[in-house]
Amino acid sequence: MNPIEGHLPSRSPLHDILAPTGIAVIGASSDPTKRGYKAMVGLIKDGYRGDIYPVNPKADMILGVKAWPTVTAIPGSPELALICTPAASVPELIAECGRRGIKGAVILASGFAEIGGEGAALEQAMMDKARAHGVRIIGPNTSGIFNLHHRINLLALDNVRPGDVGIISQSGNMLLSLALEAQHNGQVGFSTYVGPGNQSDIGFNDYLRYLGEDEHTRVATLYVEGFRDGRKFLDVAREVTAMKPVVVYKSGSTEQGQKAASSHTGALAGSYAMTVDLLKQAGVSVVQYSDEILPVAEGLGLLQKASGKRVAVISDGGGQATIASDRLAEAGLELAELSEATRDRLRAILFPQASTVNPVDVAGSTDANPSLLATCMEIVAADDNVDSVFLVGMFGGYSIRFAESLLGDEMRGAEAMVDLAKAITKPLVIYSLYTPVKPPALRRLHEAGLPIYASIEHAVRLLAALGERGHYLNASRAHRLPPAVPRDPDSATAIHAALAAGRDLLEPEAKALLRAHGVPVLEERLVTGPEQLAAVVAEFGEVPLAMKVVSKDILHKSDAGGVRLNLVGEAALSAAREAILASCRAYDPDAEIEGVLVAPMAPKGVEVIVGVSRDPIFGPVLMFGLGGIFVEVLEDVAFRAIPLSPFDARSMVDQIKARKILDGVRGEQAVDREALVALLLSVSSIVSAYPEIAELDLNPVIANADGYALVDARIILDSPTQETPS
Amino acid sequence: MNPIEGHLPSRSPLHDILAPTGIAVIGASSDPTKRGYKAMVGLIKDGYRGDIYPVNPKADMILGVKAWPTVTAIPGSPELALICTPAASVPELIAECGRRGIKGAVILASGFAEIGGEGAALEQAMMDKARAHGVRIIGPNTSGIFNLHHRINLLALDNVRPGDVGIISQSGNMLLSLALEAQHNGQVGFSTYVGPGNQSDIGFNDYLRYLGEDEHTRVATLYVEGFRDGRKFLDVAREVTAMKPVVVYKSGSTEQGQKAASSHTGALAGSYAMTVDLLKQAGVSVVQYSDEILPVAEGLGLLQKASGKRVAVISDGGGQATIASDRLAEAGLELAELSEATRDRLRAILFPQASTVNPVDVAGSTDANPSLLATCMEIVAADDNVDSVFLVGMFGGYSIRFAESLLGDEMRGAEAMVDLAKAITKPLVIYSLYTPVKPPALRRLHEAGLPIYASIEHAVRLLAALGERGHYLNASRAHRLPPAVPRDPDSATAIHAALAAGRDLLEPEAKALLRAHGVPVLEERLVTGPEQLAAVVAEFGEVPLAMKVVSKDILHKSDAGGVRLNLVGEAALSAAREAILASCRAYDPDAEIEGVLVAPMAPKGVEVIVGVSRDPIFGPVLMFGLGGIFVEVLEDVAFRAIPLSPFDARSMVDQIKARKILDGVRGEQAVDREALVALLLSVSSIVSAYPEIAELDLNPVIANADGYALVDARIILDSPTQETPS
Repeated sequence: MNPIEGHLPSRSPLHDILAPTGIAVIGASSDPTKRGYKAMVGLIKDGYRGDIYPVNPKADMILGVKAWPTVTAIPGSPELALICTPAASVPELIAECGRRGIKGAVILASGFAEIGGEGAALEQAMMDKARAHGVRIIGPNTSGIFNLHHRINLLALDNVRPGDVGIISQSGNMLLSLALEAQHNGQVGFSTYVGPGNQSDIGFNDYLRYLGEDEHTRVATLYVEGFRDGRKFLDVAREVTAMKPVVVYKSGSTEQGQKAASSHTGALAGSYAMTVDLLKQAGVSVVQYSDEILPVAEGLGLLQKASGKRVAVISDGGGQATIASDRLAEAGLELAELSEATRDRLRAILFPQASTVNPVDVAGSTDANPSLLATCMEIVAADDNVDSVFLVGMFGGYSIRFAESLLGDEMRGAEAMVDLAKAITKPLVIYSLYTPVKPPALRRLHEAGLPIYASIEHAVRLLAALGERGHYLNASRAHRLPPAVPRDPDSATAIHAALAAGRDLLEPEAKALLRAHGVPVLEERLVTGPEQLAAVVAEFGEVPLAMKVVSKDILHKSDAGGVRLNLVGEAALSAAREAILASCRAYDPDAEIEGVLVAPMAPKGVEVIVGVSRDPIFGPVLMFGLGGIFVEVLEDVAFRAIPLSPFDARSMVDQIKARKILDGVRGEQAVDREALVALLLSVSSIVSAYPEIAELDLNPVIANADGYALVDARIILDSPTQETPS
Repeated sequence: MNPIEGHLPSRSPLHDILAPTGIAVIGASSDPTKRGYKAMVGLIKDGYRGDIYPVNPKADMILGVKAWPTVTAIPGSPELALICTPAASVPELIAECGRRGIKGAVILASGFAEIGGEGAALEQAMMDKARAHGVRIIGPNTSGIFNLHHRINLLALDNVRPGDVGIISQSGNMLLSLALEAQHNGQVGFSTYVGPGNQSDIGFNDYLRYLGEDEHTRVATLYVEGFRDGRKFLDVAREVTAMKPVVVYKSGSTEQGQKAASSHTGALAGSYAMTVDLLKQAGVSVVQYSDEILPVAEGLGLLQKASGKRVAVISDGGGQATIASDRLAEAGLELAELSEATRDRLRAILFPQASTVNPVDVAGSTDANPSLLATCMEIVAADDNVDSVFLVGMFGGYSIRFAESLLGDEMRGAEAMVDLAKAITKPLVIYSLYTPVKPPALRRLHEAGLPIYASIEHAVRLLAALGERGHYLNASRAHRLPPAVPRDPDSATAIHAALAAGRDLLEPEAKALLRAHGVPVLEERLVTGPEQLAAVVAEFGEVPLAMKVVSKDILHKSDAGGVRLNLVGEAALSAAREAILASCRAYDPDAEIEGVLVAPMAPKGVEVIVGVSRDPIFGPVLMFGLGGIFVEVLEDVAFRAIPLSPFDARSMVDQIKARKILDGVRGEQAVDREALVALLLSVSSIVSAYPEIAELDLNPVIANADGYALVDARIILDSPTQETPS
C-alpha cells in the first residue's frame, strides 16, 4: 500500500474516507457506459497512488487491474468503497464492507428515501447495517466524489485541475456546470467535491467541517437544496467562516422552486428568507444567482476580504463607470470619498477633463499609456477612505484597440498591479471588456492570482461579498455572546405549574417572566371582581385605560370581543368589564375566565413585532419586523438563530426595508434603536434559559423615542398536553 | 460613384447619412494612433464601395487614397463627413460641409456642452452653422458610427460581423463590450451602430426611427444615459415596438449612478423608476443589468415573442430545474400546468422515476439517448397550456460526459429541435452547461438561429422579455386610447378666471371640474357664514362630518390648523369653524379665506394616491400608488405617460408591490379595481383636455369594495403669476 502524502491527522473522520489509501470499486465494469467503468478510468488516468480493488464476480481483470469476485475476497483493507450497484443490493454490501474493515462507502444508486415508501425502508435498512458495522455513508443518490490533490477522481471528470475551491453540491449538474465554467475561465481549480445526496448519514455540516480543516481548500462552496441538521450546520459554519470563506447557493428561493426542489431530494426546504438570514449570521457568503457562484467563490478564495464597504472605481469610460456606480449602490456598497490629497495626486497625472471624483474617469489620459491605470489604482489604494479598488474598462485591450505598440505599457501596467496587490491588504478587483479575448496583460494578472471579470455585475457581487465578509470579521467583539442568564425561580415555578396543568403561560405570567428578566412591561392590574375597579382607577388616575380578558381558553382575544380600549373612569371600566365577560361567554361558554387585565393605553409610536419559534431544521429562531402590513403583506422581517450576539441584534434592526420608519418619517422622532436591540438580546437570553418555551410572541411592541412599550406577550410552552381549543 | 445596394427610399432622413454614397474623412491621417487613420483603415479594409475623400492639407495621399487639402476642394458630393479635428475647428468646418452639399457630419471631438461654459457656447455656434447650412449633426462627443451591411466601419472595429442587431449607445466602451461579447459568443452580428454623443441635433428618437425602418435591423438595442426629448422617443418607440423588439438599458438606476452619469454627459437623467415604467408602456424591453443586454437582444431578435408567460421546463437534472423554477417565478413567469394527455405522452417515453409535472425531470431517461429531449420538447410544445419551452441541462455534452457514441443521437436531437422550432410559433430557449465548450450539437442549434445560453439567469431574462412582449402585443385592443373628452365650459371659465387672477384652482373648483367629467366626488358644501351651518346639518343629518378651510393662500391646510374631523351636530360644527378661522388667521394673517368646506367623513377603505405632473423630459405623467408610507417610504408607485390606454391603467394597478392590500388583507373585502382603472383613465382624459393643468393631486382617494371616495383634490395651473405663499 502506498502512503498518501499530505494526509494530516485532524478531527474530522472524513479525512480517512475522502483521502483514502485504498478504494474498492464495487460494480467495476469494462462497459464504457457504466459508472463502474468511469470511476476506474478516473482513478487510473489521474494516477491515483493508493490501491484499487475492482469488485465484479464476472471479471478477472478490469482495465488492467486485477478484479475480485466479492468484497470479502479483497486482500487489502481499503478505507473507501464506491458502490455502483443497484439500490436493493446496498444494505448487504454495506455489511460486507464493514466486515472487511472499510470505513466509508459512496453510494451512487437512487431509489432510496427520495422516492418515499419502499425506498425509505431500504434507506433505513442500509443505515442499520452501516451503524452496526461502523461504515460511514456518503449518499445514497449521490453523483460521487473527487479529491484532486489526492488524484481521486471517481467522476472521471475531464479537464478539472487541482486548486483551492472545495465543492459540496446536491446537484451533480451544478458541479459539472462549475467545472466547465472553471475550465473555460482558465484559472479556477478544485480541491474536494462531494455530492451529499440524501445525507442519510453524513450531512452538510460534516462535509463543511472537513473542508474547513482541509489544507488544500481555501474557499468552501456549497449548492444546497435542503439541510438535515441546520443548527449543527450553523455551528460549524460559524467556526469555518472565521478561517476561510464559505459560499452557499441555496435553491428554492420561491414557492415554485421549493416544490421543484422537494420533488428532487428528500430534505425539508425551510423558508428561504429565514435560511439566508441564518447563514449570513454565521458569516456565510450567500449568492443569489447560480451564475455568480464561481465568480464569487474564486474572488473570495483569492482576495479573502475587504475591511469595509467603500470602493474606489477607476475607469476609462464614463458609461461603464456609471453602471458600476449603480450596481455598487444597489449592493449596499459605497463610493469611497477620495481625500483632497488623493485627488491632487490624480490630477497631477491625468488630463484636466478627467474626473477625480469617485468614480474616477481618466477621460482619455491613459489612451497613450495604459500603465497609468496602475498608478491611479496605487494612488486611490493609499487613501484611508478606500477599502477596495475596482478597475473598470478596457485594460488588456489597449494594444488591440489602439495600437500594438501599447503592449509594452500594458504589460508594465499589469506588473505594477501585481506588485500593488502584493504590497497592500486591500482587494483589487478588475473588470475588463476584453476578458473574453484573454489578452496577455489579463493573462498575466490572472496567473498572479488576481480575479478578472467579464461582467460588471459579477465583479460587484464579489466586492459586496468581500465587504460583507470584512464587516463580519472586523466586528469580532460584537459577536461575543452575552453571558447566560439564570432562571428566575418564580417563573420556573409558573412554567412547571402550567406544564403540569397542560396549558401555556397566561398573559400575566408571561409578562411577569419578562419583567423578572429586566424587560420593561407596561404596568397592569388583574381584576377578578367588580369591587377592584375603584382601586385601579385610583392607581392609574383618570387616564384612558385598556382592558382585556385573561383566559387560558381564549387565544384570540379580539375575535372573542375580549378587548376594550380608551376607557376613562370607573363607570366606563365597569361597563366594559360586563361587556367583555358577556361577549367571551357567548364566544366560548366553556372558557375558564380568570378576570380582565387593565393597563394604561400604550403611548404612540411604531408597532414592531418580536417573535420566537423553534424551527424543525434550525432550532430556536428570533424574528423581528414592523407590525401590520409590513409583516403580513410585505414579509419585511429579519431572522436570527438564538442565541443572538449584539452584532446580530443590531444588524437585524438595520436589515428591514422599512427601517426608515424607525428613523422617523412625517416629522416623527426616531425610535430608540438601542432599546430595541436590548429587547432582542433579552428575549434571546430568556429563550436560551427556558428550553420549555416553544414560542414567544411580543405583538405589538410600541417603539418610540423613549424606548418601547410591551403591550402584549404570549408564551407557548413545549409539549403542553392540553387540547387545542376548538 | 458606386451605387450602394439595398438603399431603399424611406421616411427618416438618416438613411442618407448612415448609408452614404460617399464619405469625407476630415482630419484623415497616416498616423496609426489617430482616429483619422482608424476610420480610413476601417473603410478600406471592410471594402466600402462608395467614394472616400480624405481631407488633410498636409498630405497628397492617405493609405493609397488621394487626399484633398480642404472640404471645398473635394470634387464629388459625399453625403457624410467624419470630422476628426479638435472642437474649436468644428463650426467653420460644418459651414464648409454645408456649402459642399454634405448632408450630415459625425463629430468625434469632445469639449462641447458636456464641459459646460465655453463648450456649450461652441456647441451653440456649431448648431447655428449646421442649421444655416442644412447639415445634420451626429454627436459631438461621439465614438462614431458603423453600418456593416454597407461596409461602413468608421470605428475600424475588428471581428464584428454584419447581422441584425442595431445599436445606439451613449457609451463607446459599451459598444466595444457588446462587440467583444458577440465575437466570443460566435453568433450575434450587427447592423448599424451610432454613438449619439451630446445629441445636439439628432437624438435617440431619430436614431430609433431609423433602426425601425432599417431592413437589416431585427432588434434595436439602446444604451441610454439620458434622453433629450423623452416624449418624442416614447412616440417613436410605440411605433417601432409594434414591428420589432426594442431593448433598452437605462443607466443611473441609483442616485450614485445618476451623479456619475451626469458628470459624463450633458443630458438630464430623470427618475429611473419613472423612465423604466414609461419605456415599458411603449412596449420597450428594459434590461436591468448590463450583462443581460446582448443575451436578451439576441434572443428577442431570433425568437420575437411568446404568446404568454407559461413556460414548460424540460431538464435532465433536478438541481438546475429548481434553479430555473426559482428564477422563472422571480421574473413573474409561470410554470405551465401540463395537461394529463401531455403527461401521459411523457410517461410513455420516460423512466417511471421521471417527474412529468413541470419542471419535467427526465431522471436519467435520456442518458442513453439524448435525442429523447427533443421529443419531450415536442410533446410539451404541443400542449395548449404552454407558451414557451425551456430546455435546461447538459444537452450537447452527453457525448463528452457519457460516451462518444452518443454524438449521433445528440445531432439527431439537435436536428429535431431545429425542425420543431421551424414548425411552431412558440419560442424554444436552451440553457446548456456545455455552452462554453461549444460542442457540435449546440453549434448546429446556434447556426440554425436558436439562442443558446451559458447562464440560467440570462435565459430566464430572455423568457421574461419574450413573455412581456407577447403580453403587450396580444393586448392590441386594450392599447386603443379612449376618445378625447370635450372641455366643460364652466370649468374652462373657472380656469381662465384663476389664471387671470394669478392663482391655482380652489378645491371646490377642482372638484367641480372632476365632477363635470364624471368623476364621483364626495358631496360637500361651502360654508361662508355661521348662519349656513343649520342647513348643512339638515342636509347631511347627524352623521360625523369633516370641515376644512378654503383659501387660495393656504396650501397645507393641516399645518395651518385648517382641518377638523368627526363633527356631529350644529354646535360642534360651529365651534370647529371658529377654531379653524382663528387658527388659519394666526397661521397667515394676510390669507384670504373663502370659507370652510363641510362634507361627510370618508368611508373606510384603502388610501390611494393619483397624481399628475409635467416631466421636463417626458411631458405629462400620471402616478398611482397606495397612500402614506407606501409612497413616502417604500416608493411603491407606478408611472405612465398621459394619455393612458385601458391596458396602461390596468397594468399600473397590477404593478405596485402592495397590490395584495387592494385584494383585501386581514379579512377586508377587495377594492373595486375597475373603479380605480376608470378613475385613472378619467384623470388622463381630463389632463389631455386641459393643457393648462400643470399638476393634479388626488390625495387621498379612499378605495373600497363599492368604488372610491375622492376626499381631496388639488389642481395647479401652468404659469400662474401669483407668488408662492410664504
